[in-house]
Amino acid sequence: MAINPTLLRIRLPALAIFLQIAMIILFGVFIRYDENADPILSTEHNLTGDRIIQNEFYFRYPSFQDVHVMIFIGFGFLMTFLKRYGFSSVGFNFMLAAFGIQWATLMQGWFEHLDSDGKIRVGVINMINADFCTASVLIAFGAVLGKTSPVQMLFMAIIQVTLFAVNEFIILHPLHCNDAGGSMTIHTFGCYFGLAVSRVLYRPGLKDGHSKNGSVYHSDLFAMIGTLYLWMYWPSFNSAISVTGTDQHRAAINTYYALTACVLASVAMSSLLDKRGRLDMVHIQNATLAGGVAMGTSGEMMITAYGALIVGFVTGIVSTLGFKYLSPFMASKLKIQDTCGIHNLHGMPGIIGGITGAITAATAPTSGTYGERLTETFSVLTKQPERLLGGFQMAGTLVAIAMGIVGGTIVGFILKLPIWDYPEDEECYEDEHYWEVPESDEESAPAVSPQPQPKHNNEQDFNMTIENAKAAA
Amino acid sequence: MAINPTLLRIRLPALAIFLQIAMIILFGVFIRYDENADPILSTEHNLTGDRIIQNEFYFRYPSFQDVHVMIFIGFGFLMTFLKRYGFSSVGFNFMLAAFGIQWATLMQGWFEHLDSDGKIRVGVINMINADFCTASVLIAFGAVLGKTSPVQMLFMAIIQVTLFAVNEFIILHPLHCNDAGGSMTIHTFGCYFGLAVSRVLYRPGLKDGHSKNGSVYHSDLFAMIGTLYLWMYWPSFNSAISVTGTDQHRAAINTYYALTACVLASVAMSSLLDKRGRLDMVHIQNATLAGGVAMGTSGEMMITAYGALIVGFVTGIVSTLGFKYLSPFMASKLKIQDTCGIHNLHGMPGIIGGITGAITAATAPTSGTYGERLTETFSVLTKQPERLLGGFQMAGTLVAIAMGIVGGTIVGFILKLPIWDYPEDEECYEDEHYWEVPESDEESAPAVSPQPQPKHNNEQDFNMTIENAKAAA
Amino acid sequence: MAINPTLLRIRLPALAIFLQIAMIILFGVFIRYDENADPILSTEHNLTGDRIIQNEFYFRYPSFQDVHVMIFIGFGFLMTFLKRYGFSSVGFNFMLAAFGIQWATLMQGWFEHLDSDGKIRVGVINMINADFCTASVLIAFGAVLGKTSPVQMLFMAIIQVTLFAVNEFIILHPLHCNDAGGSMTIHTFGCYFGLAVSRVLYRPGLKDGHSKNGSVYHSDLFAMIGTLYLWMYWPSFNSAISVTGTDQHRAAINTYYALTACVLASVAMSSLLDKRGRLDMVHIQNATLAGGVAMGTSGEMMITAYGALIVGFVTGIVSTLGFKYLSPFMASKLKIQDTCGIHNLHGMPGIIGGITGAITAATAPTSGTYGERLTETFSVLTKQPERLLGGFQMAGTLVAIAMGIVGGTIVGFILKLPIWDYPEDEECYEDEHYWEVPESDEESAPAVSPQPQPKHNNEQDFNMTIENAKAAA
Repeated sequence: MAINPTLLRIRLPALAIFLQIAMIILFGVFIRYDENADPILSTEHNLTGDRIIQNEFYFRYPSFQDVHVMIFIGFGFLMTFLKRYGFSSVGFNFMLAAFGIQWATLMQGWFEHLDSDGKIRVGVINMINADFCTASVLIAFGAVLGKTSPVQMLFMAIIQVTLFAVNEFIILHPLHCNDAGGSMTIHTFGCYFGLAVSRVLYRPGLKDGHSKNGSVYHSDLFAMIGTLYLWMYWPSFNSAISVTGTDQHRAAINTYYALTACVLASVAMSSLLDKRGRLDMVHIQNATLAGGVAMGTSGEMMITAYGALIVGFVTGIVSTLGFKYLSPFMASKLKIQDTCGIHNLHGMPGIIGGITGAITAATAPTSGTYGERLTETFSVLTKQPERLLGGFQMAGTLVAIAMGIVGGTIVGFILKLPIWDYPEDEECYEDEHYWEVPESDEESAPAVSPQPQPKHNNEQDFNMTIENAKAAA
Repeated sequence: MAINPTLLRIRLPALAIFLQIAMIILFGVFIRYDENADPILSTEHNLTGDRIIQNEFYFRYPSFQDVHVMIFIGFGFLMTFLKRYGFSSVGFNFMLAAFGIQWATLMQGWFEHLDSDGKIRVGVINMINADFCTASVLIAFGAVLGKTSPVQMLFMAIIQVTLFAVNEFIILHPLHCNDAGGSMTIHTFGCYFGLAVSRVLYRPGLKDGHSKNGSVYHSDLFAMIGTLYLWMYWPSFNSAISVTGTDQHRAAINTYYALTACVLASVAMSSLLDKRGRLDMVHIQNATLAGGVAMGTSGEMMITAYGALIVGFVTGIVSTLGFKYLSPFMASKLKIQDTCGIHNLHGMPGIIGGITGAITAATAPTSGTYGERLTETFSVLTKQPERLLGGFQMAGTLVAIAMGIVGGTIVGFILKLPIWDYPEDEECYEDEHYWEVPESDEESAPAVSPQPQPKHNNEQDFNMTIENAKAAA
Repeated sequence: MAINPTLLRIRLPALAIFLQIAMIILFGVFIRYDENADPILSTEHNLTGDRIIQNEFYFRYPSFQDVHVMIFIGFGFLMTFLKRYGFSSVGFNFMLAAFGIQWATLMQGWFEHLDSDGKIRVGVINMINADFCTASVLIAFGAVLGKTSPVQMLFMAIIQVTLFAVNEFIILHPLHCNDAGGSMTIHTFGCYFGLAVSRVLYRPGLKDGHSKNGSVYHSDLFAMIGTLYLWMYWPSFNSAISVTGTDQHRAAINTYYALTACVLASVAMSSLLDKRGRLDMVHIQNATLAGGVAMGTSGEMMITAYGALIVGFVTGIVSTLGFKYLSPFMASKLKIQDTCGIHNLHGMPGIIGGITGAITAATAPTSGTYGERLTETFSVLTKQPERLLGGFQMAGTLVAIAMGIVGGTIVGFILKLPIWDYPEDEECYEDEHYWEVPESDEESAPAVSPQPQPKHNNEQDFNMTIENAKAAA
């Protein structure tokens, strides 16, 4: 059904308040500070005096803040490219991430950080991981952008965070994969979850496009703010939870170089694919980032700087081709409408990242390049020295795809039940259903002429003046 | 009197140059590097070799940079929501902060950091504190935004920084309060100072609104850049000068979670308060931040993560209600015109922060949760183990309110003297009195049609064309 | 010749792909991880266990990220002030920097970081240095902004990075200068290189201006994002590669204060130079930054905080005067068309920075303020205790100017050969030759009236409606 203001006014506040109160209660029961934040535990762990600098905070907080900017400014502004959906893009991104962080802290805590006393002990690592989980939600958000109501999105986020934690647990524990930057757990899972939802919610009425599903000049510049923050801080994203020291450092270096190669590849392909050789902002805003996604698994490994360049280069090409050819194909043939093209930015690059990670991991034990520290990067080898790392890494990618598709399909069908109010086709991609939208820019452009002028509301006064002209004539 | 270009051209440069030369002289007499920046002192303090990492710089510089972004991008862009006052918002914010930093370094130095030889020794801590003091100036700026001249604002900043240092000294020294994130010293003081100025400068002519006191579509997106940077970096703000180690870490964690709850509360209330359930950008831009303000005192304490969520949740509700009901009431009944709604973002949340801090501090000595490190967080207990922490914390909030109101009232009356030139009512909220404003966006929108078109200045050519139509007829 | 879409479509992809493949091969041959990123080397260097915190990564990565933001957001958005060249400003900036980083890693590696085995070992220091070199390219880009094709710019970047490495080597090695923030190597060199190119490519057709060489209201706000990020993070820029500890700390402090003085100076001069006392956005966007440039050499030295204020103050005045008087003179008399006014922001301030550094260095050995650590800041003194530091510092500035002018002139003449396609005068400063530009903002402004309205394309429908009016009459 169409957006119903009365329902919106009941459901959105009710759901938000219910969720927040639930979070408060669950936090009260489960969440405590970890040894880096709790004064008594920190004394027990000898994190006092000169050893205060050994507090995890000083190793990871700067990276955390970079990741935090990626979540709120990066994802938020990347999606402001739509001409009339900027408030929703940045505003719902804000709302979803703020809820996602809390719920992820609990879900990840129950699966990963539960202490023997049944408490979840949190510190900067949990903050990073909660932001990571939220990234996955925001990726899926990109597929349905403009086509779902905020209540639907919040529901999606509840389920997706839950499944994220399950999926992440399987990949990190039974499978013992490495995935510090989340090629599998964040990007691949998030993308296929979002695409599955979008597939089920297919809108035939939008198959020939929509007048508001596009950008204007300044909205594309706002989106570039999002792009650049994602691009610049991706080295922090991929290194934020790596083992401290060389692993963390290496993840930053590899991601840094991979992304530079990805930019040149995207520029080259974008120009090549246009008849007049012109660049397409969609490619520059998105495909340039694919190299960061693809470094999510192997970034911390000894992939070498030139290996990183190759991955970034290939991914940039694949991603740009995806925007040009695969997305239209998916929309018309597979009935998958992907507003932001997340399959090109997160899906294929995530899989490339998973494969790259599998290959790099497979060759790690015999490469000799890790020396004695091999078991630091691949901690599973301390228990199973003969582990076939590559195979399990590949399995991780497959699990992520499967979990994403199954979970997203289920959520899609739930969102199709006749209990939701969501936008009709013609209401899509339009802020004014959810926001009090101010007057447009043009009507209040600063006057530059010194003398005061009578104000014209172009469209309304216009007809009046024409009437006058006719009358006078 | 109205803005007088001749006076503006004399007074603004004269004041700025005078202040800058005064700063240079005072810096020359008083400012020296501290042991973390001076080579000889650092050797004496054994900050060499492997102990270089113990330099305060490495504990606090990343947080300093986050705070710095909050001051210039955060406050600056938050205020660009006004449709024709973007240059002034971001430009005068820049000017005030740049002066405020210098003057605050001196004032806070004289009160807090004066060495036995009469010199102020500066390092990263002083930089953070100077930025903090400046935040207070920018908060007050928000109340008078659009209604005062740059010369008046510079004068306001001179006095406010001075009083800030006095107020901070009272709160931190005789009262020995904890207030690392400045709920009292920065937010409460800054807000009531600004409101008092605005009250004295009450403009009856604006009581029914002003056509330029509002936003347009893209100005609201610019403002969201400010909002998000404030929101994301607030954990750094509240932890930047805490005791290193667990206190600093805890302040970041608590602020992080408090802010997420605040977003959901603001979204819920904003929708609930609108007849059609739509969100109001004013709430999303401002009320979402109130949780950070409210964590300014208790953030570093053992308030627990769920305590932080509760505070964030309550503050978000209070702040949104404030924008909806209290601000109009204050404008119409109390004659306090508060352009940015600082009372809802800094005033009430600051007081909530002060109260929260008082309660948390009051229960600290008996809570047992600090262990042996209780006296690190509450250093006054080393001298007075029986100190009633809560009462003194509450006293701090009252001092901040009183100092703000008294100081702001005095400044307001000074600004009412007939020696100033300031904007008439109709000149308010308009850049072009202070800035060379370029042509408006619409007139130079990129042409999309392939063939060249004659340019129309809509408003001027319009009448001409109508004339032609009539003539032809 | 004019822009040729066919050539653009061949040359831009071909060059980008060729360069990227070349980079991959060269990285494969030469680039390895350094001891802070390689597991085996780090064990040899004892960077394990509690000493992991001694990894260079933790001393410099936060500063690196700040520098990285300056390069991509700072320089990129600073140049979006042009009304119709925003995509190119931020997009070509992105492309040039992404290539520049890779090529700079190699060039600087061959000159500075080559190991005995012929490999370049990279870590966070190399990332910072590569970003620094790129800054120099982007400075030169500012002089020719809007007047060259992307293929020309990529060629410029190839040569400039090469010469940068040579110039830097001369200044840092035979001359043994200090220049941690690059007043000489980055700003002076980059500026005179760009001006020389622009001089050779002088366009008489633009001597009376160009309708698109100017800003609109919102493009000036976008540019302020660039300005503020450059301004805020400049302390990180000037301290990023200083000796760790007090030197790094001092560089941040000095730059911080110098920049505040520069803001007041720029505001004062901007108002003073306008007949109506109004501020000019060009000055606020640019001259406020000049103090950071001028602290590039002496920032890490014992220049004192008040010395920094003086330098910032003077540089702000000089820079603003330059925009007002020198740039028009250079354009009309010297035939140097400098789109962004880089001579005022990087040229003169760079020279001031060089001179300031020379004076500060000259007085260092006898000042007594460095104590035993004099030879840490000026490492050349360990070998040549009697070295005349000031003279060699001055020589460094002269070398930078000379290398810039000679190199830029040669590149300019190459770019004048009839093999390039570049924009005709009337094609300058216009995105649509290189980008698929979406419809303009005005045409899709959100409707605020509740009832649906027929859409008018003002310019086209207008004439039709007039026709109707006449017909009806």
